Amino acid sequence: MSAVIDEDPRVNGIKTKIRVVPDFPKPGIMFQDITTLLLDPKAFKDTVDLFVERYKGRNISVVAGIEARGFIFGPPIALAIGAKFVPLRKPKKLPGEVISEEYTLEYGSDCLEMHVGAVDKGECALVVDDLIATGGTLCAAMNLLERAGAEVVECACLIELPELKGRDRLHGKPLYVLVEYL
Amino acid sequence: MSAVIDEDPRVNGIKTKIRVVPDFPKPGIMFQDITTLLLDPKAFKDTVDLFVERYKGRNISVVAGIEARGFIFGPPIALAIGAKFVPLRKPKKLPGEVISEEYTLEYGSDCLEMHVGAVDKGECALVVDDLIATGGTLCAAMNLLERAGAEVVECACLIELPELKGRDRLHGKPLYVLVEYL
Repeated sequence: MSAVIDEDPRVNGIKTKIRVVPDFPKPGIMFQDITTLLLDPKAFKDTVDLFVERYKGRNISVVAGIEARGFIFGPPIALAIGAKFVPLRKPKKLPGEVISEEYTLEYGSDCLEMHVGAVDKGECALVVDDLIATGGTLCAAMNLLERAGAEVVECACLIELPELKGRDRLHGKPLYVLVEYL
Repeated sequence: MSAVIDEDPRVNGIKTKIRVVPDFPKPGIMFQDITTLLLDPKAFKDTVDLFVERYKGRNISVVAGIEARGFIFGPPIALAIGAKFVPLRKPKKLPGEVISEEYTLEYGSDCLEMHVGAVDKGECALVVDDLIATGGTLCAAMNLLERAGAEVVECACLIELPELKGRDRLHGKPLYVLVEYL
């Protein structure tokens, strides 16, 4: 089951393009696959446009995207609002000096890294990923940005799994999503 | 040393934003780091614009991006030219049925996967990555697209390391790059 939580008529078109794959990455998990959305140029553009319309003119100078699917949605948003794009990556992928945050996620534990010097103190940041489940990844991303002195204004995801209550781990900051799956 | 191989004045600005990190991922390797380019909204936009200006109106309906840095540049190009975006991923990341290609790369061997059904027979495709070294990754990407019946029109990279002759492995198809490092 899923509920569309934005009244914009484009959201329904977006939702129909997300494919649910059962038993991935392991038995019993229903995986929301956004790659089918990317195959529809209009639905992909509508998705980016909805985020851009929300964030344009809000003084956001940093869009941070989480590897790997946050790299697909973050850069078009950053380009459209005139912000820098900061990739938050898995360990040992960034070549320069980094800060790191370990976190637990739905299927185990992992670590995110950010380049030292990627953000300046006082910058307003948006964190982008495709999906929020338990919120562990987004929480780690916020920690990285806040440790570097940025202010996280909001987190933006295409999809929320609200039963996992990830929203409660986002430091009291707002979460904006287009579609939720119950 | 590096040479700028496009006469467009924007290319010089782009080149100055790419950072070279010595001894990454291992001693003796000079790593071209595009994350510093992404921190400059104008240079990032100029990069995407140069590709879009080249590919607009050329009947390209597929932009395939290689995980992970090809995910940063491919989607904005796809959105601007009205093409679908097809992510080519490391093994076990795509949830649906896939086809796979193993390949050797500068620092070992790896495998790329593409979803079955992502492209249709006869579609014209552009392959995007940040950098071409030995060409193994791009060659694997072309194999995936061609096995699915698409025609690869060109490969596009920000950076070429021409001494590694990766260009010779691209099935005789053109390669377009903005900057080369000798």
